Amino acid sequence: MKLSARNQFEGTVTRITNGQAMAEVTVKVGTLEFAAAITEGSVKSMGLKVNDSVTVAIKATDVMVGK
Amino acid sequence: MKLSARNQFEGTVTRITNGQAMAEVTVKVGTLEFAAAITEGSVKSMGLKVNDSVTVAIKATDVMVGK
Amino acid sequence: MKLSARNQFEGTVTRITNGQAMAEVTVKVGTLEFAAAITEGSVKSMGLKVNDSVTVAIKATDVMVGK
Amino acid sequence: MKLSARNQFEGTVTRITNGQAMAEVTVKVGTLEFAAAITEGSVKSMGLKVNDSVTVAIKATDVMVGK
Amino acid sequence: MKLSARNQFEGTVTRITNGQAMAEVTVKVGTLEFAAAITEGSVKSMGLKVNDSVTVAIKATDVMVGK
Amino acid sequence: MKLSARNQFEGTVTRITNGQAMAEVTVKVGTLEFAAAITEGSVKSMGLKVNDSVTVAIKATDVMVGK
Repeated sequence: MKLSARNQFEGTVTRITNGQAMAEVTVKVGTLEFAAAITEGSVKSMGLKVNDSVTVAIKATDVMVGK
Repeated sequence: MKLSARNQFEGTVTRITNGQAMAEVTVKVGTLEFAAAITEGSVKSMGLKVNDSVTVAIKATDVMVGK
Repeated sequence: MKLSARNQFEGTVTRITNGQAMAEVTVKVGTLEFAAAITEGSVKSMGLKVNDSVTVAIKATDVMVGK
Repeated sequence: MKLSARNQFEGTVTRITNGQAMAEVTVKVGTLEFAAAITEGSVKSMGLKVNDSVTVAIKATDVMVGK
Repeated sequence: MKLSARNQFEGTVTRITNGQAMAEVTVKVGTLEFAAAITEGSVKSMGLKVNDSVTVAIKATDVMVGK
Repeated sequence: MKLSARNQFEGTVTRITNGQAMAEVTVKVGTLEFAAAITEGSVKSMGLKVNDSVTVAIKATDVMVGK
């Protein structure tokens, strides 16, 4: 599936911090580390675990620029 | 200023596509290229231009994971 | 690709309104009609056109509830 | 109140999963099921409970398209 | 309608900058001025114009904190 | 750092409600009170606490208008 989110990078899950409704997933993309806050339900339904190869996807409207 | 957005990466503006209300700004971070859709007003008030050193900032809740 | 966005529905593109930086895409899912504002760049790179079968994807944190 | 969020659908709350800061609310709209991650504070201040008639509201910029 | 968006403030529209797909609406709330980027379709369907009394609504997950 | 988020207001932290993955931070700006849902990780890495002087930042695309 091609997704309209303009930013899509391939990486590896390095950490999953579980909460009650939300979890925080860390994904390493090259030398960068992304933090994703997704629902616990997503973690379970995707069977997401450390070392999984994943794609990080971010909409262009969700990217800010600081200068 | 330290910002609560968990994802902050330093890069360089490589392209600005102007629209009427919204602009699309491309930022190169190492080998990755980020697309940011920000308002024309922000481009002007920040005086944003190609080759500027900038920080890309993204909230953890705006990062999706695909597997 | 399984995506962490909790809301994913299959539908058909019924209208694309082009802008300069952003476009508005209408997707019919059963009797519901979704409006998506995505970048012109996405419309082009996906080759998106009317009658395409698509998936609408929305993060749970982007869904509000009114009562 | 008319809201600028382009996507507004009427449905019924079918499940509320409480967390500490965030809750996940499931809303059935016809045959579709929406997952909303909202703050615990909103659940309480709205007195949200299963079987409530609610409106699901989503901004067009928060809708992605996959093909 | 009570909305799950935690931040809701009453104000007055002071400016509307029209684009092709997106418009920028400025709303004055006391001494603060909010900029909202909404679709042209919303501006039209709401009949939004300068001096309208409106409510600004923002989800808690969309508010960042800088220090 | 100048940030592309169009809405930036200075205020004071009045309350922090900790969760497991997400926290809710209340910031007073003049007579308005903003609720921000940010990750626990951000609260810790910023050393955020009650009475801190902070800036609230919100992207224009995350502001809705109700009428």
